[in-house]
Amino acid sequence: MTNKIKVAVNGYGVIGKRVADAVRAQEDMELLGVSDVTTDYRVATAITQGIPVYASTEEAHQEMSAAGYPIAGKLPDLLDNADVVVDCTPSTIGAGNLDLYRTHGVKSVFQGGEKHSLTGHSFVAHANYSSTLGRDTTRVVSCNTTGTVRTLIALQDAGLLSKARGVLVRRATDPWESDHSGIMNTIVPEGRVPSHQGPDAQSVVPDLDVVTMAAKGAHTHNHLHFWTIELTRPADTEEVLEALKAMPRIAFVRRSDGIVAVNSTVELMRDLGRPRGDMYEVAIWEDILTVQGNELFWTYTVDNQAIVVPENIDAIRALAGTVEDGDESIQRTDRALGVRADFFSPSQCSGRSKTPA
Amino acid sequence: MTNKIKVAVNGYGVIGKRVADAVRAQEDMELLGVSDVTTDYRVATAITQGIPVYASTEEAHQEMSAAGYPIAGKLPDLLDNADVVVDCTPSTIGAGNLDLYRTHGVKSVFQGGEKHSLTGHSFVAHANYSSTLGRDTTRVVSCNTTGTVRTLIALQDAGLLSKARGVLVRRATDPWESDHSGIMNTIVPEGRVPSHQGPDAQSVVPDLDVVTMAAKGAHTHNHLHFWTIELTRPADTEEVLEALKAMPRIAFVRRSDGIVAVNSTVELMRDLGRPRGDMYEVAIWEDILTVQGNELFWTYTVDNQAIVVPENIDAIRALAGTVEDGDESIQRTDRALGVRADFFSPSQCSGRSKTPA
Amino acid sequence: MTNKIKVAVNGYGVIGKRVADAVRAQEDMELLGVSDVTTDYRVATAITQGIPVYASTEEAHQEMSAAGYPIAGKLPDLLDNADVVVDCTPSTIGAGNLDLYRTHGVKSVFQGGEKHSLTGHSFVAHANYSSTLGRDTTRVVSCNTTGTVRTLIALQDAGLLSKARGVLVRRATDPWESDHSGIMNTIVPEGRVPSHQGPDAQSVVPDLDVVTMAAKGAHTHNHLHFWTIELTRPADTEEVLEALKAMPRIAFVRRSDGIVAVNSTVELMRDLGRPRGDMYEVAIWEDILTVQGNELFWTYTVDNQAIVVPENIDAIRALAGTVEDGDESIQRTDRALGVRADFFSPSQCSGRSKTPA
Amino acid sequence: MTNKIKVAVNGYGVIGKRVADAVRAQEDMELLGVSDVTTDYRVATAITQGIPVYASTEEAHQEMSAAGYPIAGKLPDLLDNADVVVDCTPSTIGAGNLDLYRTHGVKSVFQGGEKHSLTGHSFVAHANYSSTLGRDTTRVVSCNTTGTVRTLIALQDAGLLSKARGVLVRRATDPWESDHSGIMNTIVPEGRVPSHQGPDAQSVVPDLDVVTMAAKGAHTHNHLHFWTIELTRPADTEEVLEALKAMPRIAFVRRSDGIVAVNSTVELMRDLGRPRGDMYEVAIWEDILTVQGNELFWTYTVDNQAIVVPENIDAIRALAGTVEDGDESIQRTDRALGVRADFFSPSQCSGRSKTPA
Repeated sequence: MTNKIKVAVNGYGVIGKRVADAVRAQEDMELLGVSDVTTDYRVATAITQGIPVYASTEEAHQEMSAAGYPIAGKLPDLLDNADVVVDCTPSTIGAGNLDLYRTHGVKSVFQGGEKHSLTGHSFVAHANYSSTLGRDTTRVVSCNTTGTVRTLIALQDAGLLSKARGVLVRRATDPWESDHSGIMNTIVPEGRVPSHQGPDAQSVVPDLDVVTMAAKGAHTHNHLHFWTIELTRPADTEEVLEALKAMPRIAFVRRSDGIVAVNSTVELMRDLGRPRGDMYEVAIWEDILTVQGNELFWTYTVDNQAIVVPENIDAIRALAGTVEDGDESIQRTDRALGVRADFFSPSQCSGRSKTPA
Repeated sequence: MTNKIKVAVNGYGVIGKRVADAVRAQEDMELLGVSDVTTDYRVATAITQGIPVYASTEEAHQEMSAAGYPIAGKLPDLLDNADVVVDCTPSTIGAGNLDLYRTHGVKSVFQGGEKHSLTGHSFVAHANYSSTLGRDTTRVVSCNTTGTVRTLIALQDAGLLSKARGVLVRRATDPWESDHSGIMNTIVPEGRVPSHQGPDAQSVVPDLDVVTMAAKGAHTHNHLHFWTIELTRPADTEEVLEALKAMPRIAFVRRSDGIVAVNSTVELMRDLGRPRGDMYEVAIWEDILTVQGNELFWTYTVDNQAIVVPENIDAIRALAGTVEDGDESIQRTDRALGVRADFFSPSQCSGRSKTPA
Repeated sequence: MTNKIKVAVNGYGVIGKRVADAVRAQEDMELLGVSDVTTDYRVATAITQGIPVYASTEEAHQEMSAAGYPIAGKLPDLLDNADVVVDCTPSTIGAGNLDLYRTHGVKSVFQGGEKHSLTGHSFVAHANYSSTLGRDTTRVVSCNTTGTVRTLIALQDAGLLSKARGVLVRRATDPWESDHSGIMNTIVPEGRVPSHQGPDAQSVVPDLDVVTMAAKGAHTHNHLHFWTIELTRPADTEEVLEALKAMPRIAFVRRSDGIVAVNSTVELMRDLGRPRGDMYEVAIWEDILTVQGNELFWTYTVDNQAIVVPENIDAIRALAGTVEDGDESIQRTDRALGVRADFFSPSQCSGRSKTPA
Repeated sequence: MTNKIKVAVNGYGVIGKRVADAVRAQEDMELLGVSDVTTDYRVATAITQGIPVYASTEEAHQEMSAAGYPIAGKLPDLLDNADVVVDCTPSTIGAGNLDLYRTHGVKSVFQGGEKHSLTGHSFVAHANYSSTLGRDTTRVVSCNTTGTVRTLIALQDAGLLSKARGVLVRRATDPWESDHSGIMNTIVPEGRVPSHQGPDAQSVVPDLDVVTMAAKGAHTHNHLHFWTIELTRPADTEEVLEALKAMPRIAFVRRSDGIVAVNSTVELMRDLGRPRGDMYEVAIWEDILTVQGNELFWTYTVDNQAIVVPENIDAIRALAGTVEDGDESIQRTDRALGVRADFFSPSQCSGRSKTPA
């Protein structure tokens, strides 16, 4: 590929810094720079890594310059040269940026904190890559919704999904947060049924019969989802596993391998050398998954900091229009990021049985 | 009543000390004493309150005496005079005690940590008080199962229950535990579906169509249950609320009253002056409960330390046979303990609307 | 006593509700009412208990009335009849109330969230009750400072204190808080040395040579203090224990009794039947306390919700001027609240050795 | 270097896997293999990375083989070819291995969980590399002790240290632990003064005048240390900072950079691309550090999983005797691991002031 997609990232926080790194890992993309308003260690580490840093506001430009950072310019300068901008600003800020992006003629990817109505299109790569082609903006849905859509459309593609009822226990705040953001020694239920994730999944796949209940749990990483799913017909476990294996970005974990809780997957990712310990895959417990007649029960965990990163990369390509086939984009993204269908290398651990007998 | 039921409590831990206090609060019961093996502050506070303390083993008798405690005797001495013993020993110990109790001719109540097969009868007051009459032993089911049975039979009694699918997020350990018992910054799913609570509910009410999934959450008090319930027919919210109101030991809470998480109910109980901050009721969120067609979604919280206390009192009466009518026993128990159908006094807060319009 | 002190409590939160209950427990005081701005369960439980509730603002009066609460009036109505008002409003609000109180001719007690300069006098009962007589306002210092002053003046009174260096690990937020107030899986050091508690102790006892460092720990109840103290001379453990025993509101706990962490004391308070599980005493570990030459090391825990409650009661009496002798006030307060020098009743556990040999 | 040091790692847990990776990063070392007893994901990821895995026991060999892992052999096979073995087994196991290692003629590094008496020599690289030359075994002290020694000898080298009194708040358990190992909503003080870290530091530097108190805090990563230090004379902040800068493996962090709590440093390490997010350095807060006359107060945090890793590498070299100069070994190790004196690259963030004016 001679012409790389020129990408800007606006907002260098939990999602923005991961998207920036993922862009740099793609052969067909170039990270022009990131834009932010802070003067703390996040900006310092970006600069240390050689990433051009821009200031998102005039005030920020003054503060960042005063703090001694070599600032590359202001956000409009960055947008002038970009093909696509990924907006990773806080949800209260993002919506106001769309006009700016359009003014600069740059296509835009928003995050799940924004409303569907902002972009009129909500994105999960396998579900609707093709409908994104030709658009100038889309919205990658939230981490919980991404996990929900990936797993449910695996069943839908296999003709197995009738309706799905989920309980989502979210992490309460992000690991880096240090004050006035967490919950302590409690669990906080969402105030309404359905919680927003169900309808949000329908913004991607309208015909899903899905209802979610949710709570915030007293931990800082990973969501844990429990689902009761009515199948279109009685099935056996093997069929369900096959349906899941056919879907990218879903990987099996097993209690029998010592993966017994959400923090086990965090440790596993670190052991696998993943950057920042990130898990891009939905990790579904193969040995908890249970089918009873036409009812399916499963449990999986989602890395709230990382699961949307590959979707953002695909969304960039879909908007840029350089790859027309969603599957090809997914494969490129996943190869570059090291996304896996199983976290244990089959070739080297060849003797291990991967599926229950 | 001229002859009070003479009650012994074996095991003075989280449940035992609460049962002991509840026995002392009943007009028709007398607490003969408690038996334990420790020499720590728990025994000291029992003695301070004037409760006769017995030693459960020969070794414990020596240690407790050596520690300077005025010990009333050994467990067999206590059993010799008791009509009913409530076994609150750890689940690994309890099963071995049944023979001892029978040898001493004392009827026995076990806790949910024991298997149903130990007693052949599992108890929730409203569900099966009458079948307990004439027996010499029963088992009060666990806190999670008690909450499950109370709420589901409310629907069953009203002819509304078809099937119920629950996700139970348990507290990870008890508040007093200080080391090597907790989980930290994670959530741990149960390893199988159904988790044991569903089948356990069926040990009380065999015809329940119930499946549970469960997890341990990173908090120390109260379980939080989410249910997706298929009703026998489309219903409206008012019908469901009426069914719940007809059932004892269920109380409504509301997010609009500031009860927004499980720790809110703990604070509320303390504000109400409850001993140890205990909540005997299932606290169901009235303003989260949602009916959609023939589907019902609700969320409630259960005080794992206290919810089984009134059931233990009723089980004592049922085994003693002094009260034949379960409803009468429940009313006596609840009056003595101050169990409420609503935590806010209607007479004094008369202007407040208690139900959604 | 024929004329009781008429007390108003402004702010019915964590401290206010405890002070209100403590006032009601005193024979020489009458709780006229409490004032607040919320419409949640806190107000409902006050009304349920028969406490007259007033609205602190015009807006609150409308909201509380609209919520159906029987409101007794507005804050000025309450102040008109009061001798002393205890201000338990949030620290951002309290300072603005002093003028109001003076306009209404009511004496006032503020909490440690306010600055010393607001009242010009900071209060710990044993330290400076007498200098409070004749004043119209004082400020009960914060929970950490109260614990610090109580323990250090015990040494000072015994002529043992040279200088004290403390590390205070605070609870991060209160148990009732449900969202956006906590820290998760971290510990947060204070940004400067000394942390504010050292200078604050000097606002009560100016000649203390004290420096504190502090952090917020990931738990919701009780502070834990570690001190390295230089004595005026080499001493033995017994002398230090005697100095502590001479001081009111300090109680010993022991690891050998199973009190091994801050949550152990919470459980102990509940077992002792304390309202809300409150601990008014500084709980100092007798079997951790160590003297090496002229250096003393000790560890104690402070119930951040309750330790200032008895001080507030004494402050009311000192301002009212009805009791001139601080020791008499302390004894009255402590008798009414059940404050203890040892949490285990010596008369009933007579054989137990209370002090190391 | 033609002949690499052949290193075995026995025990592939939190420390073992990090030491193994660090060995592989050294130009003058070769990782022969690791030995363990588990069959879980840890072994699988080792194999996936191409590390030869051995079984530590006969039973483990059977289980690991049965689980389908390609096992390279048994522990004695591994030892036969090794120059140095790093024992990272649990502390209850390690001591029993010394004889085995000696029988196989392999030099050995133990961890801080073992007693000083096992090896008769306790190791911190800067403090006593030279006294390790010619020995056949040493013990790298624990994470807390390593942090303590590094910082105190910086002052000692500068002639500033008189005596040091520390309060160490330890993380309660490791991040990977999922059950029955943690504490919840409490803080647990050590039962005696001094806690073991003070005397342990003296096992490395006997003339240190150091006393420590300690507690377990409710978080899973990083220890936080507070120190009150008496200097030999009044000093200014600049002198202290210079002393710290002269010592390897100490790095400054600043609240003004957004590093405000121990979890901030974890996030920073991930942002810097550190493997597993590891921090090898003591991170001392430059803008909390305070000097008052001849008293110094400072606060730093220690990554309990990683801080001893570079010390293990140096201990290997010292035992092997291939490098005689400790400073040279430290520099080699630190270059290979990317250890830094400041986490922000001065060359790229050149305008930033690194030290307070």
